[in-house]
Amino acid sequence: MEKGLLRDILAFACEQLIDAGQIALGRFRHTLTIDNKLATGAFDPVTEADREVESFLRQRLTAAFPEFGVIGEEQGFTPGSSQVNWIVDPIDGTKSFISGLPTWGMLLGLVEGEQALCGLMHQPFTGELFVGSAEGSYWQGRGERLRLQTRQTTSLENATLYCTHEQMFANPDHLSAFHRVAERAKLVRFGADCYAYCMLAHGLIDLVVEDTLQPYDIIPLIPIIEGAGGVVTDPDGNSPLSGGFVVAAANSALHRQALELVNR
Amino acid sequence: MEKGLLRDILAFACEQLIDAGQIALGRFRHTLTIDNKLATGAFDPVTEADREVESFLRQRLTAAFPEFGVIGEEQGFTPGSSQVNWIVDPIDGTKSFISGLPTWGMLLGLVEGEQALCGLMHQPFTGELFVGSAEGSYWQGRGERLRLQTRQTTSLENATLYCTHEQMFANPDHLSAFHRVAERAKLVRFGADCYAYCMLAHGLIDLVVEDTLQPYDIIPLIPIIEGAGGVVTDPDGNSPLSGGFVVAAANSALHRQALELVNR
Repeated sequence: MEKGLLRDILAFACEQLIDAGQIALGRFRHTLTIDNKLATGAFDPVTEADREVESFLRQRLTAAFPEFGVIGEEQGFTPGSSQVNWIVDPIDGTKSFISGLPTWGMLLGLVEGEQALCGLMHQPFTGELFVGSAEGSYWQGRGERLRLQTRQTTSLENATLYCTHEQMFANPDHLSAFHRVAERAKLVRFGADCYAYCMLAHGLIDLVVEDTLQPYDIIPLIPIIEGAGGVVTDPDGNSPLSGGFVVAAANSALHRQALELVNR
Repeated sequence: MEKGLLRDILAFACEQLIDAGQIALGRFRHTLTIDNKLATGAFDPVTEADREVESFLRQRLTAAFPEFGVIGEEQGFTPGSSQVNWIVDPIDGTKSFISGLPTWGMLLGLVEGEQALCGLMHQPFTGELFVGSAEGSYWQGRGERLRLQTRQTTSLENATLYCTHEQMFANPDHLSAFHRVAERAKLVRFGADCYAYCMLAHGLIDLVVEDTLQPYDIIPLIPIIEGAGGVVTDPDGNSPLSGGFVVAAANSALHRQALELVNR
């Protein structure tokens, strides 16, 4: 895609996501109907906030770019006439959302074929916007705009590692892979969803290791991480466009060490 | 203490904490000197933000109320001439603070003898203030003020449980006690420090079970929880003025069930 066009699309996407943020904010900390997406066992909540935000964004995005498809968490895939698709996760971190914590975000990405062109994360309660593309990544909030740059931590022993929850690992082997990294890290913390990847891009933490991600959980974050100098892959070292097990690191030296432990 | 005087002190305390918030905010997400408070083993970070905020508050509080003592996380106990003491935790959730997450808070409480008279939590990045006393609890932010009321969830199977980190439990028995409650809860989440207790007061989560708390970690939160209708005790059912193992619940029915499992 041509640079100027992508820049225009990115500016448009920021506006839509900020508008959608007002819908989410209107539902945040108010009484919500919370449904469980899983028929039995685990609790995978979805609220009317998720559904309303996705519907709003689909309508706005499709009206402006009818040739682009839309892949969203709640309403699936609506193909367009081109190879370009929007990726929408209306509320990433629904469990934080329903608990009143601000560590959730609204994700919007644009993919052409197998390439994530740009990605956005918006947190309307804190008024933050994280944006990434091949031109770099930036944070916007409190009337400021900052260029994002990951940290230069090159040793696991000095690294801060985040993960949303140990229960996200698909099986004992995957959990052991996480533990091999966690045992070496200086600080291990849980519970931040997309916010953790944005803090990595911001140069405040060093590693995120997670599992069972859906494509829409991670694709919009890839350009934010990479545009800030970070590295994010699956265990084979490929771009994690299919989600699953993901290793994000502040730099390639740290990523190499983490991946080696994951695959040991 | 006379009601009118306490109300004046509370208003004064709110102003000082909001002023101190600007100091913390000036350090948040900026390069920090992070020291480890523990000589060996675990990582217990303290930053210049913690020290500067506590020094600022001590100076302001002592100038206005020289007869009150001050107990602070970083600088210990400075006795006054009365039975009244301020309790200061300049940055509760330093690990979140140094990771850039907004789930930390500044805690200020007032204790007379064995009674927590009032408590405040301030989160300057989100612009929130949680205040509690015998007159009730309220949240202030975004130009609004809301009265806080805990939830009426009376079954553990419908409860959301928070805990900062499983590694905070002092020994395997305490960790098992936590797990007995966690296994029954609908949703278990980690990583929120003082923010979790405030979400409990706000009616957004139902339980917090933690261990190895210091007095200054919990005392300022007691009036916020109780003023909103919640119950917070140690495993013996006493007010957790000494910190340690703490069970906070949205209501007495839920608290009874959780405490029974903790003590089983």
